[in-house]
Amino acid sequence: ALTACATPQPEDAATSLREHALQDQAGYAFVRDLTTEVGPRMGGTEADARAVAWTKARFEQMGFDKVWTEPVTFPQWQRTHERAHVLGKFPQPLHITALGGSVGTDGELQGEVVMVDDYAALVATPSARVKDKIVFIKNRMRKHKEGAGYGEAVIARGKGALEAEAKGAKALLIRSIGTDSHRFAHTGMMSMSAGSPQIPAAALSNPDADQLERLIAKGKVNLSLDINVGWTGEYTSHNVIAEITGNKKPDEIIVIGGHLDSWDLGTGALDDGAGVAITAGAAYQFIKHRLRPGRTIRVVAFSNEEQGLVGAKAYAKAHANELDRHIVASESDFGAGPIWALKTRLNNADEAFIARATALLKPLGIEYLGNDATSGGPDIIPLAEKGVQLFQLKQDGTDYFDYHHTADDTLDKIDPVAFNQNIAAWTVMLHLFANEWQMDQ
Amino acid sequence: ALTACATPQPEDAATSLREHALQDQAGYAFVRDLTTEVGPRMGGTEADARAVAWTKARFEQMGFDKVWTEPVTFPQWQRTHERAHVLGKFPQPLHITALGGSVGTDGELQGEVVMVDDYAALVATPSARVKDKIVFIKNRMRKHKEGAGYGEAVIARGKGALEAEAKGAKALLIRSIGTDSHRFAHTGMMSMSAGSPQIPAAALSNPDADQLERLIAKGKVNLSLDINVGWTGEYTSHNVIAEITGNKKPDEIIVIGGHLDSWDLGTGALDDGAGVAITAGAAYQFIKHRLRPGRTIRVVAFSNEEQGLVGAKAYAKAHANELDRHIVASESDFGAGPIWALKTRLNNADEAFIARATALLKPLGIEYLGNDATSGGPDIIPLAEKGVQLFQLKQDGTDYFDYHHTADDTLDKIDPVAFNQNIAAWTVMLHLFANEWQMDQ
Ligand SMILES: [Zn+2]
Ligand SMILES: [Zn+2]
Ligand SMILES: [Zn+2]
Ligand SMILES: [Zn+2]
Repeated sequence: ALTACATPQPEDAATSLREHALQDQAGYAFVRDLTTEVGPRMGGTEADARAVAWTKARFEQMGFDKVWTEPVTFPQWQRTHERAHVLGKFPQPLHITALGGSVGTDGELQGEVVMVDDYAALVATPSARVKDKIVFIKNRMRKHKEGAGYGEAVIARGKGALEAEAKGAKALLIRSIGTDSHRFAHTGMMSMSAGSPQIPAAALSNPDADQLERLIAKGKVNLSLDINVGWTGEYTSHNVIAEITGNKKPDEIIVIGGHLDSWDLGTGALDDGAGVAITAGAAYQFIKHRLRPGRTIRVVAFSNEEQGLVGAKAYAKAHANELDRHIVASESDFGAGPIWALKTRLNNADEAFIARATALLKPLGIEYLGNDATSGGPDIIPLAEKGVQLFQLKQDGTDYFDYHHTADDTLDKIDPVAFNQNIAAWTVMLHLFANEWQMDQ
Repeated sequence: ALTACATPQPEDAATSLREHALQDQAGYAFVRDLTTEVGPRMGGTEADARAVAWTKARFEQMGFDKVWTEPVTFPQWQRTHERAHVLGKFPQPLHITALGGSVGTDGELQGEVVMVDDYAALVATPSARVKDKIVFIKNRMRKHKEGAGYGEAVIARGKGALEAEAKGAKALLIRSIGTDSHRFAHTGMMSMSAGSPQIPAAALSNPDADQLERLIAKGKVNLSLDINVGWTGEYTSHNVIAEITGNKKPDEIIVIGGHLDSWDLGTGALDDGAGVAITAGAAYQFIKHRLRPGRTIRVVAFSNEEQGLVGAKAYAKAHANELDRHIVASESDFGAGPIWALKTRLNNADEAFIARATALLKPLGIEYLGNDATSGGPDIIPLAEKGVQLFQLKQDGTDYFDYHHTADDTLDKIDPVAFNQNIAAWTVMLHLFANEWQMDQ
């Protein structure tokens, strides 16, 4: 199934690779088939194991030199059902989804709702006001190309339940951390760093949060919650790793990838089937065109990013003794919108190299934004903390949080043209880091 | 709560009413409060009775001269749950919703899927191919300003189950009759005119129908269906009727309205809370400005349109002996998009009257399209069949079938500016028919 194309001429290998990458279908086929054949693949579910086996087989089929898995163990969290409805004069269902790591309601839980403006307002609320109540945090995430609204809003999901519990509340509801106005509740993990909340926590879709606000404006609102979720044991999944061995500096490794797990509600096309597929699809350009890279290119499909970077931490630990040979790292984990900027965090971003990158990326509509990248993607955090250098291909994420962590994260949300622009940009960066960057040192 | 405005001058009463109507909030408050306080209100549910009581109270509060209800009896159909998942190598859930009037699966039903292009292809398929299979009709409804794609596609929902059953199939799945790409399945009634199908029938959301097509392309697909719905008895609901009595020709009645029932999945903002609210909001302009119309204006909130125009048929029967005094009728039941055209079906559409209507509607961006209206709205069909004259204010329905009959039909989908343009246009038409049309005859 691997069609060989005319080999690009050495003098313009990067340009030729870029143009071929724009047309190649292997990356798109990866995300299409992963989301179709495996579908939703939350860490710790039966589909997690199928996703690992599927990805290993696909990497082998694509012709990587080495393909292997590494174990990743974590507590298992499961979702059975979740329901909410308004009691009293205006009875009606509300669409919710439990937050990752939530406990269940153990049958039906009823309570009066106390609404607060945002997480900070909850912190400032006296316990007497929320004790034995259901806290509802109402603030809405704003849309932003770089997802700046996420960091502002997500604290309600991360820390809301623990704060509400500390004040004696019996449950937490938040407005979904999402920018759409459809009746999809957005799930996502609570922060477990300060402890695991013992009250149930769930998100309302934006239209349902609007509805609850309107109902509260009319008087006291009592809700019934029936949430069956919880921690059920321990599970061992795997990072899936594929490598093209370099022919000049094989011991120097460029690490790229995405995370293989998704939430359970959608099929994880944008988050993060796309990221694995884009990076694997870019690496595949070297296989397809029989252009062996100078350095080693390693693609990692990280296990269970969603529930706490579990695979990323396991990878950093397992490879601790070779991290000095990880010369640069980056992840794609912000959907499949067009890339508009490159950032780097290199110890020495020499002008000639940056000029070369800028020239190669410009035809793709990508500008260089400087050597002050703050992130190479969530799964790269453990590597960055150990001093691994970074690059970041910044995607337009304006619509990303319309779909993020919802049932609506499905293949049709990927624009194939933008998707292949991503592959072309990653291919350029792989070429530059594998064959041109500091090769004489 | 009823603020009196400066009374428009007689010479430009229509213009003044139109401009005031653009600013009035009573119509929007109607649909906001109905969808918030009652929420989903499928015919035959406990919410149906609440909707009737709510609407009667609101009509009275708005100051109509007479408000009353008339009984409407129909078989009761209920929905408890519906689930689908793919069996075999690629197990995953699919989002479905049962079609109105479907029977349940009586526990789990498993079967192999046979895909056909459209309803016509099903008709042409030999029984041997679909016997004991689950038939899947895959064609997608196209977007169109006037909803032309609906008529083409909806036959799969209307007649698919009966046809599949006649060929020995064990269940029917259709691609939702909808134009969005979100994971909302669109419900809606099957045609019961040729008999009530005895096999379960459900719709897949568009992304799920795409997924099923991709899975079928990979080989045989077996599905599990668990659908708990069905006919449960008989129910009596009510049409809710409000009237402003004319002061010149009180016996001549202008009938307008929408349908009060919605499907159970959403809150029925677009279908058809908007229609009742727009027409009631337009009639309210005469109350608010203390301008008694020459003819009687009657607003009907029809019961259970969705399951077969039940309220409309009951109204036509109950008022059979006064239909000759129903001088014109029209319903709003196509969402809340801006109105772009007027059509009429009048026995004598005299030029002066049409010129007057055209001049008054032009500032709202509405053109006159002729005296050949084919419909005054679904609930007007029984009246039109008896010869009642019609007008039709045609809304832009390009996005209507993105939300139609889904959980996503909620208040946020109504654009308040377009909504009030509707109220202004209806107010103009009410003024013209109540005070100017054929008043000297
Ligand atoms: Zn992610
Ligand atoms: Zn995520
Ligand atoms: Zn309708
Ligand atoms: Zn309808």
